[in-house]
Amino acid sequence: MAYLATHKRSDVARRVARIHGHVHAINEMLDEGRSYPEIVHQIVAVRSALDSVIQVIVADLVEDCVARAGQNEPMTEALEELQQVVAKIR
Amino acid sequence: MAYLATHKRSDVARRVARIHGHVHAINEMLDEGRSYPEIVHQIVAVRSALDSVIQVIVADLVEDCVARAGQNEPMTEALEELQQVVAKIR
Repeated sequence: MAYLATHKRSDVARRVARIHGHVHAINEMLDEGRSYPEIVHQIVAVRSALDSVIQVIVADLVEDCVARAGQNEPMTEALEELQQVVAKIR
Repeated sequence: MAYLATHKRSDVARRVARIHGHVHAINEMLDEGRSYPEIVHQIVAVRSALDSVIQVIVADLVEDCVARAGQNEPMTEALEELQQVVAKIR
């Protein structure tokens, strides 16, 4: 299925690229023998960053629905995509 | 601060390395134009894998405490590290 909303997609990609770097840093911290509290601190930060990505995606889909409604366009597909996303995160 | 528990540390490192690969895959999915529900599905999987890493770390620290208690060794440090980890994840 092709994606619908698009204007926040580059923001999503940038955030995921940053998270990729952070996970690599956790790997290095493990190699360096850093303590578990330090490791967990970074893991929690990554988890929080992932939650932010989901928020950006939800906002993008909601804005897509609103835009379609404003232009009297059908928003069945946009709502369906939003519903699928929400079903996955609850 | 040096880490205390150690025997699950290689398991933690393996899991984090695998998560690193999964985040890279999400980046590729974004490049390929995959849909938001598909992206979110992967993000939720990574978040769940991070939670599992934290569980392994907590188990390692708890086992460290139990082992020290069994050998009548002081476990103040081990408990402190466990307490710090729990404080970060709640």
